Amino acid sequence: MIIKEIINRRSIRSYTSEPVSDEQITEIIKAAQFAPTSNHNCAVEFVVVKGANKNKVYDVLKKDFVKEAPVLIVPVLDKAKSVAPVQDLSIASEHMMLQATALDLGSVWKNLDETWAAEVKKILQIPETHLIINLIPIGHIKTPTPAHTDAEFSGKKIHKEKW
Amino acid sequence: MIIKEIINRRSIRSYTSEPVSDEQITEIIKAAQFAPTSNHNCAVEFVVVKGANKNKVYDVLKKDFVKEAPVLIVPVLDKAKSVAPVQDLSIASEHMMLQATALDLGSVWKNLDETWAAEVKKILQIPETHLIINLIPIGHIKTPTPAHTDAEFSGKKIHKEKW
Repeated sequence: MIIKEIINRRSIRSYTSEPVSDEQITEIIKAAQFAPTSNHNCAVEFVVVKGANKNKVYDVLKKDFVKEAPVLIVPVLDKAKSVAPVQDLSIASEHMMLQATALDLGSVWKNLDETWAAEVKKILQIPETHLIINLIPIGHIKTPTPAHTDAEFSGKKIHKEKW
Repeated sequence: MIIKEIINRRSIRSYTSEPVSDEQITEIIKAAQFAPTSNHNCAVEFVVVKGANKNKVYDVLKKDFVKEAPVLIVPVLDKAKSVAPVQDLSIASEHMMLQATALDLGSVWKNLDETWAAEVKKILQIPETHLIINLIPIGHIKTPTPAHTDAEFSGKKIHKEKW
């Protein structure tokens, strides 16, 4: 049995105006804090954005779902504390998206290229020494996407013993 | 409620000799294939290593758990097919580790630096055009590690509206 949150998690880009509670946000971030990190650095931190800065981030990214989602969570990592910061931030992000699914919430990985990351860091006053690679909008799903099915599975992508 | 596989997943570096079945390996890789990928590239592939090549990989990495685990899964991505290959490989890897947990199996992220990655790619005949960043040993757990607890949660790592 595939984990049900893995089956049900889809990239959601349309949210209702219903808020996400502080308890839900804490649970989502707790799940991210239980993610493995390189050399167990446990150094990923989180900026939770619900107010005026969300609109400023929207002005940079110009994606409606950034404005529509009631909350954005931005995972942040001090580059000096990790030997694999992109990996650490990615896994923490995926734990958040799976945990949001467990709470019947939708989320999406909004990737930030270097230019966007620099602008978002400026808005959120994240220091130069720290890395961000994405942000995760979270909200109640307006338009659901069907769950994953076995039809997506490709045995051709499995190689035995060597490529 | 935090997803139980997130609570129970720990980095396991000690395995019994009991084999991992093909059905279990397929289920673990299916979970990885349901992971999100940048621009929905769905291009992550997998090399499953159980035989002589596992010992050759051990000769490079010199980690007992690589020899001890009955199977290694190496996620592979054609660099031309992804705008965020490290992120894509990381998330697919984490889905594998969570799904292994769901199957009562242990796993660990064995990180590969560039030198190690080049050597492992040579052993597994993975082309230069493709990226690997890690390998995931999987097996039945010999020495369990306690599950995550709320004591690990740090509210200090949560920043409101800005850093």
